[in-house]
Amino acid sequence: MDLEEMGSRAAEAKYELQRLTTQEKNDALLAVADALRDKYEVILEANRKDLDAAKEAGMSEGLIDRLRLTQGRIEAMAEGLCQVVELPDPVGEVMETFERPNGLHIEKRRVPLGVIGIIYESRPNVTADAFGLCFKAGSAVILKGGSDALESNLAITDVIRESLSGSGVTRDAVQLITQTDRGVTAKFMRMDHYVDVLIPRGGAGLIRAVVENSTIPVIETGTGNCHIYVDKDADLDMAVNIIRNAKTQRVGVCNACESLVIHEDVMQDLLPKLAKALREKHVQMRGDEKVRTIVEDCIPATEVDYGTEYLDYVISMKTVSSLEQAIAHVNRYHTKHSDCIITRDPEAAQRFLSEVDSACVYWNASTRFTDGFEFGFGAEIGISTQKLHARGPMGLKELTSYKYVIRGAGQVRG
Amino acid sequence: MDLEEMGSRAAEAKYELQRLTTQEKNDALLAVADALRDKYEVILEANRKDLDAAKEAGMSEGLIDRLRLTQGRIEAMAEGLCQVVELPDPVGEVMETFERPNGLHIEKRRVPLGVIGIIYESRPNVTADAFGLCFKAGSAVILKGGSDALESNLAITDVIRESLSGSGVTRDAVQLITQTDRGVTAKFMRMDHYVDVLIPRGGAGLIRAVVENSTIPVIETGTGNCHIYVDKDADLDMAVNIIRNAKTQRVGVCNACESLVIHEDVMQDLLPKLAKALREKHVQMRGDEKVRTIVEDCIPATEVDYGTEYLDYVISMKTVSSLEQAIAHVNRYHTKHSDCIITRDPEAAQRFLSEVDSACVYWNASTRFTDGFEFGFGAEIGISTQKLHARGPMGLKELTSYKYVIRGAGQVRG
Repeated sequence: MDLEEMGSRAAEAKYELQRLTTQEKNDALLAVADALRDKYEVILEANRKDLDAAKEAGMSEGLIDRLRLTQGRIEAMAEGLCQVVELPDPVGEVMETFERPNGLHIEKRRVPLGVIGIIYESRPNVTADAFGLCFKAGSAVILKGGSDALESNLAITDVIRESLSGSGVTRDAVQLITQTDRGVTAKFMRMDHYVDVLIPRGGAGLIRAVVENSTIPVIETGTGNCHIYVDKDADLDMAVNIIRNAKTQRVGVCNACESLVIHEDVMQDLLPKLAKALREKHVQMRGDEKVRTIVEDCIPATEVDYGTEYLDYVISMKTVSSLEQAIAHVNRYHTKHSDCIITRDPEAAQRFLSEVDSACVYWNASTRFTDGFEFGFGAEIGISTQKLHARGPMGLKELTSYKYVIRGAGQVRG
Repeated sequence: MDLEEMGSRAAEAKYELQRLTTQEKNDALLAVADALRDKYEVILEANRKDLDAAKEAGMSEGLIDRLRLTQGRIEAMAEGLCQVVELPDPVGEVMETFERPNGLHIEKRRVPLGVIGIIYESRPNVTADAFGLCFKAGSAVILKGGSDALESNLAITDVIRESLSGSGVTRDAVQLITQTDRGVTAKFMRMDHYVDVLIPRGGAGLIRAVVENSTIPVIETGTGNCHIYVDKDADLDMAVNIIRNAKTQRVGVCNACESLVIHEDVMQDLLPKLAKALREKHVQMRGDEKVRTIVEDCIPATEVDYGTEYLDYVISMKTVSSLEQAIAHVNRYHTKHSDCIITRDPEAAQRFLSEVDSACVYWNASTRFTDGFEFGFGAEIGISTQKLHARGPMGLKELTSYKYVIRGAGQVRG
C-alpha cells in the first residue's frame, strides 16, 4: 500500500482508538494473544522463508538466531501482550487541575500520542511488542521492520489485524510498511503530517539516520556508553562485583558497562582483583598508562576507546586524580544513558549524581537496572537518551501526551 | 565567534548553571534587570542603527515598529526579568520516588535541559525574555535572532553578559550568533552534539525550515488556525461575544480565531447578528454557500481558506449538519493549537473536548486564553503545537527535563 494511504488510515484510526475504553482495549489485546497462539504455524512458516533467504545470503549464525522464531518465542509474544493487559491504562488520567481568577477551569489530561512510527531492525518479536504498547496507550502504530524479517513481520501483523477486526476494532491500529527500498524509509521519516512521533530501535547507525533525516519528532533510544566510576572511598569488593555484573551479565545490551573510571588512590588495591574477575569472564581490558603498569595484559586505550559502546567483552579503563576529573571524563565520553559512582562518601555521590548528565545516575548499583521492567513500569518501548519528552526507560506513560481542557461560562479576554 | 566554539562554551556553561542555587540565579537576574535599565542609552543607540538600516531597506512601518525599542520597552524587558525572579524554581523538584523490591531507591528529579537554542525573527525584546526564562530554568541559551535586529540584540546580549560576569556567573549563559549568512543557521540546527533542544519562534516559514533541517530535537511553536464551533444548542449571544473577542481582540497572534464552524440549525439565528458584530470590527467573512445565502457580503471560501492562519481581519465560515462533521472539519484543518465549542449541551461538549486533537480545547470560552500568563504559569517561552514533551503554553517547568537518580547498596542484576 502507498505510504500516504497508510498515513491517512493511521490518522483516521487514531480517533477510533482514543475513544476505546480500557476494557475494550484489554479484550482486543487478549484476543490478539490467543490469535498468535492459534496461528503459530502460519507465523513459523513465514519465518522459515526469512530464515532460508538469510542463510542463502550468508547471514551470520548470531543474526540468524535473532531472526528465528519458535513456538516458544511466539508464546512469549502472546504472554507479553497479556502482561500489557495487566498494566494500568494511562489514557484519560487527570494530571492537574486549576481554576483561574476569571473562573476558567483548566484540566491537564493525559491523551494518546496519536500515530506512532517505529523503525526497527531487530527481532520479529518487536512487531507484537510494539503494537501491544502503542495500542494500550491508545495510539495507532506504523511499523517499518528490517527487510530480513519481512515475511515474519507480515505474518504477525496479519494475525494481529485480523484479530482486531474480529474484536470490532479498526485493523489500521497496526500497519506494516512492506516496501523494502531505501526511498520508502526516507519518505516515511518525513510524514510529519500524519505521524506524531518516530521511535527508532536498533544500532547507532539506524538511530543517526533517523535523527538526520526525520521531520517527525524523534525519541532517540538505545545507545549506551555506560560508565562506572570507582571513587577513592569505594568498597572495592562491591566495585568488583558491580563492574563484573554490569560488564558481563549480558554484553550486547545498551545498559551494559563499557567504560571504567578509577581514582588513583585505589588503583593499586582495586586493579589486581578487578583484572582477575574480568579475565575469568574473558573481558579484554584497554587502559591508560597507569592502569597498564598494574595490569600487565591490559592493552593501550585510545581516545576512540573512551567513546565506544563495544557491546562486546571489552572494557576501557581510565585513571583520574579527583572526582571532578571523573565527572568531566564521564560527561565528555558518555551517551547520557546510565552512569554509576561507587563510593562510601555521600558528598562525592551527591556531586556525581547531580553533575553527571545522564538519564540514569547510579550510586552503588549496577547500570544493568536501567530497564522498564526493573523500574517497575511493567513494560518498555526503549530507553530514551535525549532530554525532550521522556528520559530513561519508557513505559506506557511515556508513550502518551497531554492536552488542556478548558471549561468556561462565556469568558473573553480583556 | 565560531559556532563550534560557542557550542562548546555553552556545553561547558551548563554544568555551572545547573549548580547555581535559586538565590544565586535570582540575584543575577535582578542585576541584569538593573543593568538593562542603566545601559538603556547604549541599547537605544544600537537600535537606532538597526532602524536606520531598516528604513534604508524600505521596511514597512509595521515591521519597523516591531523593531523599535524605547526606554519604556527596555523597562518592560527589565520588568519581565524581575517577574521571572518571582517564579518558583523548577530545578531540583523531586517528581516521584519509588522503592524496588531489591531495595533500589529510585528518584525522578527535575533537571535543566542543558543547552537551549532559540531561533527567532521577532522583536529584540525576545533576546532578554528568552535569556531570563532559560537562565532561571538552569540552562545555557544560544540565540539566533533576525539579522534586522542584530545591533539591538548584540547590545542587549552584551549588557546581560557583562552583568552576569559582575555577579560571578559565567557570561556564556547567553550567547548570540552574530553571523548572518544562511549557512550559519543551517549549521546551528545540526549542532545536536551541543544543543539539547531547539525552539523556533516566528512565522510558519521559519518553523518549517527548522523542522525540515534540524537534527536537534525541536519544539514546534506557534502556528494557530484556531476554530470555534457553534453547536445547535449554543447560547448565541455568548457565541457572538466569544467569536468577536477571539477574532478581533488582537488579530496577529497565534491564539486568535481564524475559522468558524456553525451548526445548520442555528445559522439562521446566529449569522445576522454575528455578521453585524464582525462587520463593525471590519472583519472580512469568507463562507460556504449556506453562509452566503444568509450573509450577503460574505465572499466564497475555498479549501485554502479553511486551512489558513490569516493573522488578519479575515475569518472563514463553514456550516455542518452534525457534531461529528464539526469535529472532523476541525481535525482536518486545524493546527492542533486551540479550538472551542460553544454549547449548552454537556454531552456535545464532552465529545468535542475529547475528540478534537488540539493542545487546548475550550468549552464556552475564547481561544485567546491559550497563553502562559493566562494559564497562571507566570511566563511563556511559546505555545507548543506538537505532542512530544510539552503541549500548549510552555512556562518554566516545560523548559526542564528530568533524570532518574538510583541509590543502591551494591545491587547487581541476576
